[in-house]
Amino acid sequence: MKMDINVDMGESFGRYTLGDDESLMPYVTSANIATGFHAGDPLVLERTIKWAKEYGVAVGAHIGLPDRQGFGRRQMDLSPEELRSDILYQLGAMEAFLKIHGLKMQHVKPHGILYRMVGEQEKYIDTFLDTIEEYNPELYIMLHTGCEALKRAKERGLKTAPEVLVDLGYDQEGNWMLERVKKARSPQEVAARALRVAQEGKIDTIDGQLIDVEGCTVCIHGDAPNASQVAKAVREAMETAGIEVVNLDGYFK
Amino acid sequence: MKMDINVDMGESFGRYTLGDDESLMPYVTSANIATGFHAGDPLVLERTIKWAKEYGVAVGAHIGLPDRQGFGRRQMDLSPEELRSDILYQLGAMEAFLKIHGLKMQHVKPHGILYRMVGEQEKYIDTFLDTIEEYNPELYIMLHTGCEALKRAKERGLKTAPEVLVDLGYDQEGNWMLERVKKARSPQEVAARALRVAQEGKIDTIDGQLIDVEGCTVCIHGDAPNASQVAKAVREAMETAGIEVVNLDGYFK
Amino acid sequence: MKMDINVDMGESFGRYTLGDDESLMPYVTSANIATGFHAGDPLVLERTIKWAKEYGVAVGAHIGLPDRQGFGRRQMDLSPEELRSDILYQLGAMEAFLKIHGLKMQHVKPHGILYRMVGEQEKYIDTFLDTIEEYNPELYIMLHTGCEALKRAKERGLKTAPEVLVDLGYDQEGNWMLERVKKARSPQEVAARALRVAQEGKIDTIDGQLIDVEGCTVCIHGDAPNASQVAKAVREAMETAGIEVVNLDGYFK
Amino acid sequence: MKMDINVDMGESFGRYTLGDDESLMPYVTSANIATGFHAGDPLVLERTIKWAKEYGVAVGAHIGLPDRQGFGRRQMDLSPEELRSDILYQLGAMEAFLKIHGLKMQHVKPHGILYRMVGEQEKYIDTFLDTIEEYNPELYIMLHTGCEALKRAKERGLKTAPEVLVDLGYDQEGNWMLERVKKARSPQEVAARALRVAQEGKIDTIDGQLIDVEGCTVCIHGDAPNASQVAKAVREAMETAGIEVVNLDGYFK
Repeated sequence: MKMDINVDMGESFGRYTLGDDESLMPYVTSANIATGFHAGDPLVLERTIKWAKEYGVAVGAHIGLPDRQGFGRRQMDLSPEELRSDILYQLGAMEAFLKIHGLKMQHVKPHGILYRMVGEQEKYIDTFLDTIEEYNPELYIMLHTGCEALKRAKERGLKTAPEVLVDLGYDQEGNWMLERVKKARSPQEVAARALRVAQEGKIDTIDGQLIDVEGCTVCIHGDAPNASQVAKAVREAMETAGIEVVNLDGYFK
Repeated sequence: MKMDINVDMGESFGRYTLGDDESLMPYVTSANIATGFHAGDPLVLERTIKWAKEYGVAVGAHIGLPDRQGFGRRQMDLSPEELRSDILYQLGAMEAFLKIHGLKMQHVKPHGILYRMVGEQEKYIDTFLDTIEEYNPELYIMLHTGCEALKRAKERGLKTAPEVLVDLGYDQEGNWMLERVKKARSPQEVAARALRVAQEGKIDTIDGQLIDVEGCTVCIHGDAPNASQVAKAVREAMETAGIEVVNLDGYFK
Repeated sequence: MKMDINVDMGESFGRYTLGDDESLMPYVTSANIATGFHAGDPLVLERTIKWAKEYGVAVGAHIGLPDRQGFGRRQMDLSPEELRSDILYQLGAMEAFLKIHGLKMQHVKPHGILYRMVGEQEKYIDTFLDTIEEYNPELYIMLHTGCEALKRAKERGLKTAPEVLVDLGYDQEGNWMLERVKKARSPQEVAARALRVAQEGKIDTIDGQLIDVEGCTVCIHGDAPNASQVAKAVREAMETAGIEVVNLDGYFK
Repeated sequence: MKMDINVDMGESFGRYTLGDDESLMPYVTSANIATGFHAGDPLVLERTIKWAKEYGVAVGAHIGLPDRQGFGRRQMDLSPEELRSDILYQLGAMEAFLKIHGLKMQHVKPHGILYRMVGEQEKYIDTFLDTIEEYNPELYIMLHTGCEALKRAKERGLKTAPEVLVDLGYDQEGNWMLERVKKARSPQEVAARALRVAQEGKIDTIDGQLIDVEGCTVCIHGDAPNASQVAKAVREAMETAGIEVVNLDGYFK
């Protein structure tokens, strides 16, 4: 039994600090590092990549919309061509730092509203998959389990990494509830949910039911005030239960 | 006898058009394409790279300061670390598009005030050279002939591409005169100056003297109103005179 | 018989020039000047205001979305609160220059997709009207004739300036056709259409019908290549026909 | 005996929080609120103005360079004309919110490196003073005590508010030591220093001397981790010592 733990990182910007990335690194196997459009900047990007290397954490591109003020959370009506070029620009920018530090890009995960745009909106799904396939078909595409883009990615033979958001509420249809500013959650509760995802393939909903979810990775939001305790609890609960905590390459080996 | 002709391109941005890049392509052997900080955007970047491919023009990264409003012309007191990461980010971003179109990056040329900062200012010279060497020591470094950075690049064994600005005025010390908004110049005059650089290694100054200049490439500014006529005249004058017009790889073969 | 002629201006940005504002000024009575979000910058804003003063043209705030790369044309899912504060910020910024030059703000006109968002989309209409009313109820609200926001503005007792886009195509329902990059149109044709709007309250559609339109102002797009000839033709046709060409205060006097 | 206490506020941006402005408000008499170039955004600007109104704190414009990534701390070689228009744009933007909330702008204080540029650098001093005088000669100009710009402002008959930075180190020449990221300082120590400024017109240097300083206001940096305790200690120490803590209008009444 295996599971990957992923966290969004590298979201600080200039004088602004968001999240405590280094404290999270020991518990994480995949880092989604912001590529400078919705969050992050070139200095932050490299610093975070260096931490990932130091802690042996696999690196993914956390791509976003060109809207720093809105933190990539406000839908923007980009043309598919604009989306494509914005994605390529960000992937390439990150590669420069990976190259210098002798790392490879493991996965790509869209941030904020882009997560829904390329995961669920007909206008963007195929453009997104085309772009990743054209750029590097070896990249894992990390999106929410069950979304349309993952289905099509699989049909194309692309590498997929379905994820479960173990620190967010779910309804019975498997929709998650977004939080504008992350609240602190009980580390034990999140750990228990993550464990159930790994062991039973199930998650509880806000009205107390259990629904099926299939994922190779669980996401913990790094901007919660107690994010590193949560990550620690999840990691330890998994290891205690005999689940191998590995990055995506390890998972799919 | 050989010479490269380089032009700055890809400086359009969103709704704003600057220069008529496609009309210049037939006459140019090296294109310095803006990498999205001082000018350009991801869509423009890819479109310009596609033109370069179509016309067989070698591509270089025209890197700039993060100041679009100032067009990268206002000195900014970046720390060397900030400069380094800003350069890497831009180089990487461009590589994504080159990769997809099966091209390689030939050279790097700093834009605007960055040209002086990394070419002449002690605070930045070594950081610039370190960054290029670390990222890709095969890149030609295109800067003004005789500048301090080129001297040190040569000592390090890096590839250098000294250039002469044949459409700008020079004083007797070899300093060139910047123009905020490019004026139209006589294509014949610029062609004659370019030819003299290629044949005699000399350029005339604003007070009518001749000074020595050594360059493997001549720069024509693409934002002059008659830029493509100038480029055409330079190209034809060279070819008529039996000078082989080649990109940097061709020049140094 | 009276009519106002309005043109979008002040859309240049840093090194980028868009439109030839000064050449348009002699023919125009109301200038919609970009307030620095989708286009324009502080230097351009003041320069354009000075031209307006010199030529006796009334000034309006051409407010836009915070998306320079998309020229304010890509819908962004702002919250109503974000829209409100973005509008106030822009109105205030322009007032500083008006104050210094002894001018008053005559009207406000939203740019690009914001024109539709606050003119037609339920989510934003009332927020827009609230914001203008709170800031300055004396401002004319310039929007497309017949749009929902103008109806409500009228009901509230706000000042409205319905406009007709005489250089764009219309369908039979009164919808106009957007052009990404303005084409040159025959000045005579546009002038004839403008005249018919003023004299008969009608405009022709793309399939050769006539529909009713009611407007106190006709808009000419300043970024067409022949914009100033068009503006000149419209102005002269009106004056020849004995129509008084006046700004909004003159129209409603 | 009187003294004003000023703090920089409104520096949050989108998803990024910097400082805990509301907790500081009870102890402060003048708030320097970021105007959206180096920090802040329209939503933050209005929210902070509303807090200032609620707590009866006078509002000043904390203007900065157009460099959010560098937090306005990296010198940029703006032309005086660019500086002028950038300042006017920011002052106006803030006024829109003040107008709506029925407040007036009390003062202007430049942020970061702009504090030195307009306070000490010949290229900018007069442009800065001209701009403020032209825009509103009733604004207090808040700068470091003894700087050249304050001297000239006084000669012109402008209103000046010399400040002392009581939570920074000073050398014997009266130069202060900048800190990139504010450290926590002992509230008692800062309070004692503020008291001495108010009572004796003196501050201690890093090598244990006392130097003369003359100020009507003491600045406390809001981004220190314990900023509100420091502000509280300063306020209480002053009140206990019988010093009237008042805003600038109160001070100069």
